[in-house]
Order: sequence, then structure tokens, then C-alpha cells
Amino acid sequence: MPQPDSIIAPAIILSEPQLGENIGAAARAMANFGLSDLRLVRPRDGWPNHKAESMAAGAADILAGVQIFATVEDAVAELHYVLATTARDRSMPKTIVTPGEGAARLKRALSEGKASAVLFGGERSGLTNHEIALADEIISIPTAGFSSLNLGQAVMLVAYEWFKAGDATPSETIDHGGGLPVPREELFRLFEHLEGELEKGGFLHPPGTRPGTIRNLRSLLHRARLSDQEVKTLRGVIVALTKGKKRDAMPESEEK
Amino acid sequence: MPQPDSIIAPAIILSEPQLGENIGAAARAMANFGLSDLRLVRPRDGWPNHKAESMAAGAADILAGVQIFATVEDAVAELHYVLATTARDRSMPKTIVTPGEGAARLKRALSEGKASAVLFGGERSGLTNHEIALADEIISIPTAGFSSLNLGQAVMLVAYEWFKAGDATPSETIDHGGGLPVPREELFRLFEHLEGELEKGGFLHPPGTRPGTIRNLRSLLHRARLSDQEVKTLRGVIVALTKGKKRDAMPESEEK
Repeated sequence: MPQPDSIIAPAIILSEPQLGENIGAAARAMANFGLSDLRLVRPRDGWPNHKAESMAAGAADILAGVQIFATVEDAVAELHYVLATTARDRSMPKTIVTPGEGAARLKRALSEGKASAVLFGGERSGLTNHEIALADEIISIPTAGFSSLNLGQAVMLVAYEWFKAGDATPSETIDHGGGLPVPREELFRLFEHLEGELEKGGFLHPPGTRPGTIRNLRSLLHRARLSDQEVKTLRGVIVALTKGKKRDAMPESEEK
Repeated sequence: MPQPDSIIAPAIILSEPQLGENIGAAARAMANFGLSDLRLVRPRDGWPNHKAESMAAGAADILAGVQIFATVEDAVAELHYVLATTARDRSMPKTIVTPGEGAARLKRALSEGKASAVLFGGERSGLTNHEIALADEIISIPTAGFSSLNLGQAVMLVAYEWFKAGDATPSETIDHGGGLPVPREELFRLFEHLEGELEKGGFLHPPGTRPGTIRNLRSLLHRARLSDQEVKTLRGVIVALTKGKKRDAMPESEEK
């Protein structure tokens, strides 16, 4: 028997899903966020399901590997850690976690070798209390007053948080089109070029305003975190703007 | 002129959306996560759109308030801070943030009185480079290798992160069915009751194992963070299990 996928990532279990579209949307969400083990308990329209296939949009592998079970007990039988999702307050004495916290707990459980899953109820009424009692803890998705996430959307948010919990994408990056930001030296040459031309144009007079004006311009150019190419472009701009100017011309206006 | 919604929460701008279903799904996602200002630029099938209405599932107020624009420039004209969403690498020198970081920046911008929005492209090819250039920064949704979020899903993840950024839901809560967890005193009485009966049943012999056994049982019962009602139930269980037992009976087995 091969090592079950639920050892490396949580399985997604849908209990009595009604619409093939939602099963397909769940599979698609799973593929986007690195999950692959999909289990269905008594899907209303049987299995396979053509509507699920047309909605899965490229996540066909996941649908091909779907396991069908007669009960939630069967679907979770070999698992060690199960989270149930529910929107309503169930007045059941279980720990309720956010999707983000649930993802962190799944990561921890899996790192300890615990086969894990997240359990979702059907479209009409969600999980029964009996099914929820089979889980260790509950994930509840916080929403504003109006709460009507459908099954596919709920699976997507849980899968998204799972992926985020293991994702190393920095919260901020700057795309310089493959290039590096400019070395400071080039930036300093740009400053000198610009300030030299501004001096000639009378923009840095009277002298009392000069330090503040230069500081503001340099600050702005630093903030833009320019690329090599952009510095070249800006130097070209300065050349183009000053081309043909008489050396000793005064600006028409001294607007700053 | 009333204060625009974009001052208290970001507007969502869809540029050239094609499918009414996705516009409706976007509105539904917005309602779930506390957004209301939806703007459409050149919706392919005109406006209003019946498919959008049937998909919006209760988010009719948002559709009723939709504003239509001829260009993205018009849609963002009065805004101060705009994030564009894109899945592909555009090789454009802009800051790229995760949805979570984008939500934090939107919160900050709005707290400074900056009217804000998140801009999404159409289903087929997303935003044009010209449209992206109109934004301050880019949100990119990290996914596993397979990336095929649709427009409604992309809006949902951004709206979800926006809601999370202002949501005070604790990451873990325990639902005791409205009641409080049991006061320690009651827990101690349960311990005494149980341990007294176990003593009679010979479970705590030989005396050398007694402290360890008691510690393990107490630890287990603490960990369960029992409610008042559950303590009562467990005390009833002890009574039921010991009922009719002869006072001096020894257990059939001493398994521990």
C-alpha cells in the first residue's frame, strides 16, 4: 500500500456534496494550493460526475484519484487528526479555530506523522452534529454579517491558508524585470547630473532653499527604488530636456 | 455628494469582466467580507446583468450600487491608493505584495484618509500593462504550480484578507455551549470522586504506581478543559460504573 497523501498534506473530505460544480470547484481550489487527496462521502449524484469534471479546469488528476466512502467514519478511519468546518454555532464543546490557525495545526500534526484531513458538509445543511463529533477541532471561517460562502469557496479558503502556512513568498518584492536595483554609485551620478543641470537652470536659487530642495529630490528618487535601466532613462530625460538650452539661460518661472 | 465607500473600505474595480456569474460571485465575496463599493469598466454583456444577479445570492445591494465606467482611468480618478492584481510576471518595476500584505497596506492607506481600491482584470487576459501602470502596487496571489483562480475566486481571496486584517476573531476559542469552563473546585471534586472509586477498585495499587497514575489521569482531564455539564456527566458515569459493586471487590484485571 502506498503512503497515503494525507501524511504529507491534509485530505479534503466532502460529506454528501450535492452539486458536481462544487466538487469540481473544490478540486480546482485544491490544485491551486497544493492539495491532492479528495474523498467524497455519499455524493448525491454518484461518481464520476461530468459537471465536476468540467468545473475542475485542469485538476483532472485530483478527480481521477477521488475515493468514495459510505460514511464519514470510513473516510477518517486511518487518520490521526481531523478538523471539521462549520459556519453555524453548534454549541458543541470543541475548540474552534480560524482557517489560519487550523492550517498551522495541520502543519504541526503532519510534521509529527499524523495523517490529517479537513471535513466539509454538504451544501444544504453542512455537517451533522454526529459528523462534527468525529473531528478533533472545528474550523470556522470568520465573515462579515452576511455569510453565504458556498462549498467550493469554503474549501478554497482552507486550502489557501494551508498553502500560505508553508509558503515562503515574501510579503513584498520588487520586480525589476529580472534586473537588480541600481547600485548606489549610479544613483549618486544621477543626482549630480540632475543637480548640475538644475543649478544651471537657476532652480536651486536662492541658495538658502538649495539644501532642502536637493534633499527632497534625492529622497523622492531613493523612494522610487530605481533599476539600472530606469536610471539610464532618467539621465536621458535630463539630457533631452536640457538639449539646445543656452548655458546661461534663466528659467521662465521659478516654481518649486 | 455623500462620502464615498472607498474611504472606509477599498472599492473593487473589475476591468472588462466577461461573465455575469463572476461579477455576481465577486459581489457575494465582497458581502461576505465587508466590502460594498463595486465598479465595472466596460462589462462585456452590459449592465444590469441577470446572471450576475442570480449568482450574487443575497448581495443584491452591492449590485444595485454598482458604478459603470468607460475606462480604468475614470474608475480610479478620485482615488489615492490603488492595488492591481495580476497572476503573471509582468516585468514591470512595481512593488509586488501578497494579498495579506496588500490588505495591511489598504488598512493603513484608508486610516490616513486615502480612498483606495483593488483592480482586477477580465477573465481572459487580466489587466493590460497600461492598466497596471495606473496602480501604485501589485497584489499577486501565491499558488502552487497549477494556477487557475477565476475572477470571483481572486476577488474572494483579496476580500477575505481585507476582512481578516480588521477582524478580531481569536485564533482559538472553545465553545462550551454558552457556559463557562468548570471552576477548578468542581474539577478537584471530580478527581477525588474518581480516585476514591479507583482506590476501592484496586486500580491504584501497588502504592508505588499511585502518584504517576493519578497525575496522568488528572492531566488528561485538565487537558479536556471540561465544562460544568461535562463534569456532572462524568460524575454520573462514575456512579453508574460503580453502582451495585461490592465495596471490597477487586477488579477482574489490573490493566493500566
